[in-house]
Amino acid sequence: MRISDIGEFPLIDRVARIASIERPDVIVGIGDDVAVLADGEELILATIDSQVEGVHFLRDVISPWQLGRRALAINLSDIAAMAGRPQYALVSLALPSDTEVDWVEDLYRGLREEGNRFQTAVVGGNMARSLGSTFIDVCVLGRVHRTHLMLRSGAQPGDRVVVTGSLGDAAAGLILAEHPDLPMTGAQRDQLLDRFLTPTPRVGEAAVIARSGAATAMIDISDGLSSDIGHICDRSEVGVRLWADRLPISAAARRVAELTDKPPWRLPLGASDDYELCFTARPDAVEELAASLLEETGTPLTPIGQVLPARKGRWLALTDGREIELGAAGWQHFRREE
Amino acid sequence: MRISDIGEFPLIDRVARIASIERPDVIVGIGDDVAVLADGEELILATIDSQVEGVHFLRDVISPWQLGRRALAINLSDIAAMAGRPQYALVSLALPSDTEVDWVEDLYRGLREEGNRFQTAVVGGNMARSLGSTFIDVCVLGRVHRTHLMLRSGAQPGDRVVVTGSLGDAAAGLILAEHPDLPMTGAQRDQLLDRFLTPTPRVGEAAVIARSGAATAMIDISDGLSSDIGHICDRSEVGVRLWADRLPISAAARRVAELTDKPPWRLPLGASDDYELCFTARPDAVEELAASLLEETGTPLTPIGQVLPARKGRWLALTDGREIELGAAGWQHFRREE
Repeated sequence: MRISDIGEFPLIDRVARIASIERPDVIVGIGDDVAVLADGEELILATIDSQVEGVHFLRDVISPWQLGRRALAINLSDIAAMAGRPQYALVSLALPSDTEVDWVEDLYRGLREEGNRFQTAVVGGNMARSLGSTFIDVCVLGRVHRTHLMLRSGAQPGDRVVVTGSLGDAAAGLILAEHPDLPMTGAQRDQLLDRFLTPTPRVGEAAVIARSGAATAMIDISDGLSSDIGHICDRSEVGVRLWADRLPISAAARRVAELTDKPPWRLPLGASDDYELCFTARPDAVEELAASLLEETGTPLTPIGQVLPARKGRWLALTDGREIELGAAGWQHFRREE
Repeated sequence: MRISDIGEFPLIDRVARIASIERPDVIVGIGDDVAVLADGEELILATIDSQVEGVHFLRDVISPWQLGRRALAINLSDIAAMAGRPQYALVSLALPSDTEVDWVEDLYRGLREEGNRFQTAVVGGNMARSLGSTFIDVCVLGRVHRTHLMLRSGAQPGDRVVVTGSLGDAAAGLILAEHPDLPMTGAQRDQLLDRFLTPTPRVGEAAVIARSGAATAMIDISDGLSSDIGHICDRSEVGVRLWADRLPISAAARRVAELTDKPPWRLPLGASDDYELCFTARPDAVEELAASLLEETGTPLTPIGQVLPARKGRWLALTDGREIELGAAGWQHFRREE
């Protein structure tokens, strides 16, 4: 049996069964994007994520400076999803010997830029030789106070599903990168490509959301809305109904959907790594939280659905009354195209 | 300019100049194998190291179980070099889609085995798709009390240079893996291949050495003795004279040197990743430390040289009175063959 036969998440389940240990200091262990480790009143958060050339990036689409920013940002987003404060990054590179030194230095300039934005110091790493593609692993360490930790578990039927910012821009940006001939204005093109290439981790927003006490579960959207809300449903043992007409899809992304003959909701649902936060919250608290988040960070919140009991399933309600069952339609590494 | 023109360590220096930040909580930052981060009376240690298929391992030479053990062990060794106590590991894999699930599970069984030996829990990681080779990054977190931290700096002229265990076995094991036809006994062959494929990090030994108060600087030998003692010389601003006839080279490794027409001291000096500890210590303290380390851990210590003032240079003294200047003759990624 090959890993393409079972896909990413079943493979993670299998290795988690092999490697997981019960230890009182391991609050969240293997199987999540972030490990949560006891350290007195505070918790240590640790996460690692990679960017693989040819799979996650192409050298002629993303500059090394952008790639450095992106490689760090996607890890900062994982720390944000737990409402953590990122502190340190380790960077492991595997590079072909003929890589230009300038390319590596620009990558580090991007890492530094992104680190400076979020008070995260690059404190170490590793350099290895690769025979073919370039591989970048970034490990980020952070902290969160025990009372502010946000997990994927905790969502309750009746909660609202809420997201920050806008969804689908990353998918639209990827389409633009692959089809540069699509007739878009320069501003719209730049907006979508930026969202795709250099996403903004919602670190400050997550802290405000956690402090409000209103949120019950949280995740960052790194594999597409369908897959990531699925993780909340799995861990919280709940179902969900999302409302297609409430998804905050930008005018630029809608334009890409139109030009490529897709319903707009397909963009965020599938493999759109928007690195927005998706959380669940008590319905009566959403309005006040949205107002204070907008004031403190400038980032809007949008309710996009409601949490159901698990037996009710996971659905997207379309405007014409039809409902589409949410599968793990997000990004799945390894899985064969269906 | 390509990275093959300048080599690994100058490249690390360049990116360190770009990314390093002055922060009071970063005791040791980018440029070392391990980051040291303030956490009250204790320090957090964080390191990352990779195993790249075709560069560090070949699938037909090392089993996935051995590779899992090795990938964790080389990081545990970095934590040991600072006299730290490893606690947690994160594992990032990039795998071709046609990888057998069994292979991945066996890799994790090896990670678990090695983790259990050193009280290190695999608490998370990442799975990505690779288009070609397999890449494994392991990040290990640990702790050390401030008073026991061992650094590369601190060696003083007059100190002895001391190593644990035996040197050169890993280089000899690599030669055996490449030349399976060399006439060796099965036991010697197994001993050397084991040392090469599944090295033992000297975690317990490092703690004893640090507690003794006798050691002034320490490193683990991951790139070969010449390169690694060079790091101590760089950071401590000292020179060194090693004694070729005192290097603890096993009978099995001597046999490989003889069969391949090399002087035995070439094995440990070059790219032998033995993962032994190399430290400097006050001469009057070495004998007592050696006795207590042998009693507590079963591991012997051998004095192999002495620390000199920086201006005296870095030398290997041969038995015939000649001296060879130690360059960075160890393992250098990227560097062209000379």
